[in-house]
Amino acid sequence: MTLAPPLQIGLLVFPDFTQLDLTGPVQVFSSLPDAHVHLIWKRIEPVRSDGPVVLTPTTTFADCPQLDVICVPGGYGTDGLLEDGEVLDFLRRQSAGARYVTSVCTGSLVLGAAGLLKGYRAATHWSAREALPWFGAILSTERVCIDRNRVTGGGVTAGIDFALTLVAMMVDRPTAEAIQLRLEYNPAPPFQSGSPDTAPAAVVAAMEAKMAPARARRLEAVRRAAGA
Amino acid sequence: MTLAPPLQIGLLVFPDFTQLDLTGPVQVFSSLPDAHVHLIWKRIEPVRSDGPVVLTPTTTFADCPQLDVICVPGGYGTDGLLEDGEVLDFLRRQSAGARYVTSVCTGSLVLGAAGLLKGYRAATHWSAREALPWFGAILSTERVCIDRNRVTGGGVTAGIDFALTLVAMMVDRPTAEAIQLRLEYNPAPPFQSGSPDTAPAAVVAAMEAKMAPARARRLEAVRRAAGA
Repeated sequence: MTLAPPLQIGLLVFPDFTQLDLTGPVQVFSSLPDAHVHLIWKRIEPVRSDGPVVLTPTTTFADCPQLDVICVPGGYGTDGLLEDGEVLDFLRRQSAGARYVTSVCTGSLVLGAAGLLKGYRAATHWSAREALPWFGAILSTERVCIDRNRVTGGGVTAGIDFALTLVAMMVDRPTAEAIQLRLEYNPAPPFQSGSPDTAPAAVVAAMEAKMAPARARRLEAVRRAAGA
Repeated sequence: MTLAPPLQIGLLVFPDFTQLDLTGPVQVFSSLPDAHVHLIWKRIEPVRSDGPVVLTPTTTFADCPQLDVICVPGGYGTDGLLEDGEVLDFLRRQSAGARYVTSVCTGSLVLGAAGLLKGYRAATHWSAREALPWFGAILSTERVCIDRNRVTGGGVTAGIDFALTLVAMMVDRPTAEAIQLRLEYNPAPPFQSGSPDTAPAAVVAAMEAKMAPARARRLEAVRRAAGA
């Protein structure tokens, strides 16, 4: 279905988010000729990502208008949101009126913790696949998963594919194609290492070992939130 | 050649930059276990991108250490840098000691204006291909162009391919593959519209028409800077 402009599109920012989860989709959405793209947090204060990028929200939970699209990006910072009532209440309130309830990467865990993915198929970062079903979601390994009005992307860079897909759904295909052209999104990864299925076994093993502590912490946070 | 850690990697920020030109590479570079990633501008003050993302530099031209990698992202804001002596002097000074002199998108025009691409092959956004040769560069339509220590990416999203390529050159291939895996960079564009060669003719024609005024302004700015 196409939505009446101007579209109201909001993305959550939060401490220790993976910035490309957000900045990829924001580049796509803000290329729309008639959309308001909001960066949302509890307060207007600088929010640190997982790297040198520090973003200042453009609006707050209290001031944000009803959105057409609510989107939660991912990153290790999602652990801290899974039992944060203020965040989960905001997502539930917006989702009740939004046309699309969406996420990138481990953002789907936060939607899950808000009870918004029960019985829905949803995607997440490959390292969080064991965590998502704790919230009643049905794990999808698609890069972009569409189930009714839930549209969820896989890890990090999947956000670009997610956002172009959503633009085609909300506006039309030529608009999405025009944005893809402007962003010269004609990817040519130098290596075949973008998923555990294609990466060299030694690279996967080393990454699994490196991520193990954070992954265990995440699963613990998810189990606690799912039981709450 | 591999470089001794910690790597010093600096990216220019400037008014009206295309944020994904910068945020894609920053996500890759800041995934390195031992790198300092700097966001550089004249002063420490919020710098507005082409969308809702506003970045605060982490250092200034005056305070920036000698970099191993200097990188200039693109966007319409590059027009304003082509005759900005403070910017061009900084780039020349850093480039004299840097191991890699790099750009994404129309950032190559700024390197060109600083006289840093004379006789070098270099890439740029597809809409700036007529502009780059004014600075003595040899136009490349590669997504990532390597000529001696100049490493330049094509438009916007090419920055991700550029950064992974550069990590493999600076560190090693398994490190680049590990970052690609973590970022789940296994792209699946929903449409075949990422370059003028693959996009539907009507989409290309509409985008060319839409971009024509800005493209004419850019070419005028380039010709003026090249004559100066």
